[in-house]
Order: sequence, then C-alpha cells, then structure tokens
Amino acid sequence: MKTPIDFWFDFSSPYSYIANEWIDAVAARHGRTVRRHAMLLGATFQAAELRPPVAYPIKRDYMLRDFARSARFEGLPYQPPPEFPIPTQNAARLFWWLHDTEGEDAAARWAGAGLRAVFARGLPIDRPDTLRALVAEHGLDADAAQAVWGDPAWKARLKRANDEAIAAGIFGAPTIVVDGEPFWGNDRRPQIERWLASGPF
Amino acid sequence: MKTPIDFWFDFSSPYSYIANEWIDAVAARHGRTVRRHAMLLGATFQAAELRPPVAYPIKRDYMLRDFARSARFEGLPYQPPPEFPIPTQNAARLFWWLHDTEGEDAAARWAGAGLRAVFARGLPIDRPDTLRALVAEHGLDADAAQAVWGDPAWKARLKRANDEAIAAGIFGAPTIVVDGEPFWGNDRRPQIERWLASGPF
Repeated sequence: MKTPIDFWFDFSSPYSYIANEWIDAVAARHGRTVRRHAMLLGATFQAAELRPPVAYPIKRDYMLRDFARSARFEGLPYQPPPEFPIPTQNAARLFWWLHDTEGEDAAARWAGAGLRAVFARGLPIDRPDTLRALVAEHGLDADAAQAVWGDPAWKARLKRANDEAIAAGIFGAPTIVVDGEPFWGNDRRPQIERWLASGPF
Repeated sequence: MKTPIDFWFDFSSPYSYIANEWIDAVAARHGRTVRRHAMLLGATFQAAELRPPVAYPIKRDYMLRDFARSARFEGLPYQPPPEFPIPTQNAARLFWWLHDTEGEDAAARWAGAGLRAVFARGLPIDRPDTLRALVAEHGLDADAAQAVWGDPAWKARLKRANDEAIAAGIFGAPTIVVDGEPFWGNDRRPQIERWLASGPF
C-alpha cells in the first residue's frame, strides 16, 4: 500500500490554487491518494520568522506577474481579489469542519471551491457575506457555516493543523510531502512526478 | 534576429550553478544566444530589503535539501563549500574583466568554472589562495587576476552591473530575461522553454 501524498495549503496562496488543480491527477496516475491540510501561512511565517513574499515591494511586482503567468502556464483562469493577500482563517475552519464531520472528499471539494473562488473569480472570502454566499452556492447551510467559523472548537482544530505544519518544518504553501520528502511550491511538480514514477533521487 | 537571453547570476547561488548548465543548450535550440551578467545578491537583496533564504533557520533546512535535490534532478554533481553562502565579489570582478577585455565567451567559460568550483567541488573561492589556484587552473595569470580584483576600476565595473540589476527590478538569482520577460529561478525552466518555443503565454 503506497502512502498518501500530504498537500498543505492556504486559501490565500496562488501557487496552492494552481497545484490543487493537478495534484489529484498526478497522485492517481501513480496509485496514490491525497490528504489535504488547510493551514494559515501567517502562523508558519511567524514560526519561521518569515514575511510574505508580497510584503517586499520589489519582489511583490515580480510575484504578482509570476502568479498570473504560472496559472496561464497550467491553462488555468487567474483573477485574484483586489486586495491580496486576504485573511482565510474562516475558510480554513470550514475545511476542517467538513474534514472531521463528512470526510476527506468533502473537505477536498471545499478546498477546490474556495481556492477557485479566490483566484479564478476574485472573491474576497474574508468578507462574511462573500463567504456565506460561497458556502450556500456550495450546497451548505450558511448559518451553520458561520456558527462553525466562530466556534472555539473549530478555531482550535485549525490551530492544531497549524501546529502540525510548524512541527513538520513547513513554512510555505503549497508544501507537498511524498514518502516524508517535502517539496515546497507548485514549481516542484517535475520533481514530484519523477519521485512518484521512480522513487527517491 | 532574435534577442539574446540575459542570464543574471551570483557565484554564490546554487540555483545559478544548476541553470548555468542548461541555459546555453536551451537557448541554442531556439536560435538564441546568452548574455551572462555576474552580480552580487548582497546588493540586490539590500535594494529589495530582502535577506538570503538561508538566513531563516527553518527555511534554511529545506533550502539546503532542495539545492542538492535540484542538482540531482538535473544530473549534476553537488558539493557546496563547508560555509555557505560565501562572498563572491572577487570572482565576479574577474568575470567582468574577462567580459570587457576578452569577450562574452571568455566570461562565460569563467562563469562555468567558478560556479562548478563552488558547487560541484566545494571550493571556498572567497579565499584568495583558493581563487588564485582556480584562476591558474583556468589558464590565467594569478597575479594579474589578483591585481584585477583589488582594482577600483573593476570594483566599479561590478557595481555598475549590480546597479543595472537593481534598476531592472532583479532581486534574486538566477534571473533569466527573455524578450523583456523576467523569470526568477532555475525552476522556471519549463516556462522559459515554452516561451522560447511558442512565444508569450
């Protein structure tokens, strides 16, 4: 039995959006499944004493260009929110709620819906009304969802995921772990594909 | 006439070492030449208010692993110096000396020799004796070379290159510019290859 691939992401990470679109197909081609883990880059950046790459004006200009180009390279639409990055803890709490109450597939569907909402449709899901509308569109109850994201128990669940990421040495997103080997970034796809095809190199 | 590809690098950059090994073949396949530009990441980091990725302990652990894995991925030997990063201004001044007095090919050969010395052989070329030995092995006069790297005129030449990099918005290495489009990182090779094959995307 091959081990699952761990996919750590943040709903505010453009490269997570891109990688989330190919990770399942790549995994399936090699007889693997994907375990998704929503986390907050704010927490891992703080632990690693990092700031977001877009916090540096000169680097930011390049990054914004590269986000869009990297999406086009994969044939994906790219339309980020007017303000970037946005806080995504509520979307991440909903991920863990679905994960723990309905299972990994339900959480994965929400991950895809949330990442596409942010980066393909430019929806500011940090706004409660926007997030409620997305939840409803996704077939969930908006009042129940809003109760979840304000609930200390689901806040603690997300914090546990952040702590697990930090304990694993994860500082950026996406981080894709295969057989214990961490690959940081959408751009490590060729290395991941080789590892899956022929093992460690 | 297709425009040359601009390849900005630092002798202390592992990803520059890797990319330097494939950039000429990739360029040639698409009827392009390569113009190399030695620079100091210390200067571009300062201008962009960045620190080296290996300055952050948690990130450093991953980066050191990724440097070696990325070299293996390209089938290249990887043996960095015991201390990393190392100051590389003297090697870079020699690059511009060769560039301006003997031409781009001579400078490119030195770029390859210097990057391989650092990352395939672990030579600390910041040490004058080590650099002198490398220069002699490369068929140049060590005394002449040492005079060059202490010469204010060649110091100024390197500073001009750093200033040009900063003016172009370059903050990291390698940065590969094709038709005015900047690609940062050895890992942008697939995007560069597509751009060269079929134009902007």
